[in-house]
Amino acid sequence: MESSLLEKARELLNRNLLTTTLSTVDKEYNVNVAVITVVEMVDDETILCARFGAEQTYANLKETGKGVFMVLVADEQGKKDGIRVYVRLAEDLTEGPYYERIKARLQATPYRDFPLKNCLVFKITGIAPISTLKR
Amino acid sequence: MESSLLEKARELLNRNLLTTTLSTVDKEYNVNVAVITVVEMVDDETILCARFGAEQTYANLKETGKGVFMVLVADEQGKKDGIRVYVRLAEDLTEGPYYERIKARLQATPYRDFPLKNCLVFKITGIAPISTLKR
Repeated sequence: MESSLLEKARELLNRNLLTTTLSTVDKEYNVNVAVITVVEMVDDETILCARFGAEQTYANLKETGKGVFMVLVADEQGKKDGIRVYVRLAEDLTEGPYYERIKARLQATPYRDFPLKNCLVFKITGIAPISTLKR
Repeated sequence: MESSLLEKARELLNRNLLTTTLSTVDKEYNVNVAVITVVEMVDDETILCARFGAEQTYANLKETGKGVFMVLVADEQGKKDGIRVYVRLAEDLTEGPYYERIKARLQATPYRDFPLKNCLVFKITGIAPISTLKR
């Protein structure tokens, strides 16, 4: 993975912006997208995600295991910027160090009153810029 | 479809905001998401979309035909708001009234220098709020 894309993914995902989404799909190709903000990219291959709602997203991940995070931001000229991070679900935890780590992060957010249901552990399978459109 | 959701979908999609995305999937459940801004909801069932880049999105739609648009905005309190519109690809046009209509819309945007490749015609299969999380 290109290191500039890795660094951009880490910086943007770990800001936990409201414009962080996760797109997923079920076996019948019904696509869903949800705002999923409490995440942490903990190394070059791994993203932790606090799952406290997101019922359809969770069901989809259990069915097909694949998804893509997008973080969308505006650059200094007001143009779109951001990152797309392609993932597969590796683990679904309800205890342990990763679970405690994302629980602590959740508790520092406005979502702190929602009980943490799962710590989803994703492996990164690809990273792409927000757009590949060439002028 | 609930009329308040329909009106919200129409209002938000037709603003062609930079925070408009389309999530799609290929046959192997590889999910993609792309910023897709030049769209028009022309009636309660139909969305037109200008396709001038978005190669992966287009390939996915030709394979599985399903997707979901999201428009993400901040409400007056700075909290997230928006809409999710679930669609299936109904037609892929390279001429005709819908093609000319979306071409005119494209030409009024910063993307006007990109030749229009296709007018994608989607049928709306569902509309959901931006979040279903209950406090």
